[in-house]
Amino acid sequence: AEEEGAVGPRCHQRSVAMLDIPFPTFCAFLGSLGLLCVALVSAWCQHWRGGFSLDGGSRTFNWHPVLMVTGLVVLYGAAALVYRIPGTWSGPKLPWKLLHGGLALAAFVLTVLGLAAVFRFHNSNGTPNMYSLHSWMGLGTVLLFSCQWAAGLGAFLLPWAPVWLRELYKPIHVFFGSAILMLSVASCVSGINEKLFFSLKNGTTQYKLLPAEAVFANTLGMLILLFGVLVVGALARPSWKRPDSGSLDSRQ
Amino acid sequence: AEEEGAVGPRCHQRSVAMLDIPFPTFCAFLGSLGLLCVALVSAWCQHWRGGFSLDGGSRTFNWHPVLMVTGLVVLYGAAALVYRIPGTWSGPKLPWKLLHGGLALAAFVLTVLGLAAVFRFHNSNGTPNMYSLHSWMGLGTVLLFSCQWAAGLGAFLLPWAPVWLRELYKPIHVFFGSAILMLSVASCVSGINEKLFFSLKNGTTQYKLLPAEAVFANTLGMLILLFGVLVVGALARPSWKRPDSGSLDSRQ
Repeated sequence: AEEEGAVGPRCHQRSVAMLDIPFPTFCAFLGSLGLLCVALVSAWCQHWRGGFSLDGGSRTFNWHPVLMVTGLVVLYGAAALVYRIPGTWSGPKLPWKLLHGGLALAAFVLTVLGLAAVFRFHNSNGTPNMYSLHSWMGLGTVLLFSCQWAAGLGAFLLPWAPVWLRELYKPIHVFFGSAILMLSVASCVSGINEKLFFSLKNGTTQYKLLPAEAVFANTLGMLILLFGVLVVGALARPSWKRPDSGSLDSRQ
Repeated sequence: AEEEGAVGPRCHQRSVAMLDIPFPTFCAFLGSLGLLCVALVSAWCQHWRGGFSLDGGSRTFNWHPVLMVTGLVVLYGAAALVYRIPGTWSGPKLPWKLLHGGLALAAFVLTVLGLAAVFRFHNSNGTPNMYSLHSWMGLGTVLLFSCQWAAGLGAFLLPWAPVWLRELYKPIHVFFGSAILMLSVASCVSGINEKLFFSLKNGTTQYKLLPAEAVFANTLGMLILLFGVLVVGALARPSWKRPDSGSLDSRQ
């Protein structure tokens, strides 16, 4: 207290209160950011990359970035944050479990459709699958996500898992929840980077000349990074964790 | 207890104890993984990319991946984990602060040299700087890191910052500590992916034919991801945090 001087403690309280963003405000911002990412990736594919189709050509590929950003980043992030809603901390857990598992399932379905789009595009064009680092980490992310979803269903939603197994698995599920989002964001930005090198090759629209499409898609990549960092940060924030998860300060 | 059955609690204790990896064991594994990443990125540049020089050509570029992986990932991760060493939790703080700040400074110096290598290569070859998403997020990461280091020095190492300011800034410093590592890992993997598309273009060594170099560098990328996820996970783990940082369970 001596070190803080006369106005120290009051300043501290005021400053810390300033930092203590309410969770709903954060969610509103994060939701807007997520919707913006989905809108921008859709606009990129529609406006610059020729739109969408199911014919196996490059317009089939365009579903890939849209579905991955929507599923593996934005919906996944929403699913991960369900247990940070204070309303989930008391009362019956089943509805929240269904919401968490349902959002994750929706994210997973979009992700699988997004994978199907790029495999169909490659196969129609005689391009090999699964050679780039982007594809390795992307598929690794989806495989981890499928294990995470199945294990979550088995341990938390189906009734027969014993409590000791649930308690054992919970920190693992929480760890992989953040890890998978980090991997999916890294996969997205490497994919956008790769796609821009593939697509922007000619004349005045070369990537290195930074045409409008490059600025647009680079900005999209930066916003996806921001979204991922904010979700992982929110998941790790002690005061937003469910009080019974073991931390004293979150009860205050 | 009823739900757990007769052997439940004992099983639970045994299983949770099994999960509770000692911090030194984890550090030994993580240190080996970090050294492996540095060895692999050096071997990649030496064996497949022609080695190192300062002449402004592609061998000057080769310093870029080596210095970035060594500085912005491995040394940065070591710096971030200093306060997870139980020995730092009591006794004088200054030596640990100097170690944390010193490792971060070493990471920062290597990072700046790594940036200098790629700018020199681009400038010698008439290639524009700062157009790709990789470069945007990489430079953004380095700028955040420089702010983080300077703010950390000002708030925690220099003697005149008031306690209330330190307490206010600490959670921000901790959040950005993990966020910057996530961004640096995403930058590394997008850079490796991009470099492989640039370099593997001809004949039987095309990236899409997955030559030995591609498998090698893809593996490097996956190991960097693993390193980053493990460090961020270790930083977030409640039982490895300094007990006075507000969490009850970490005191147990």
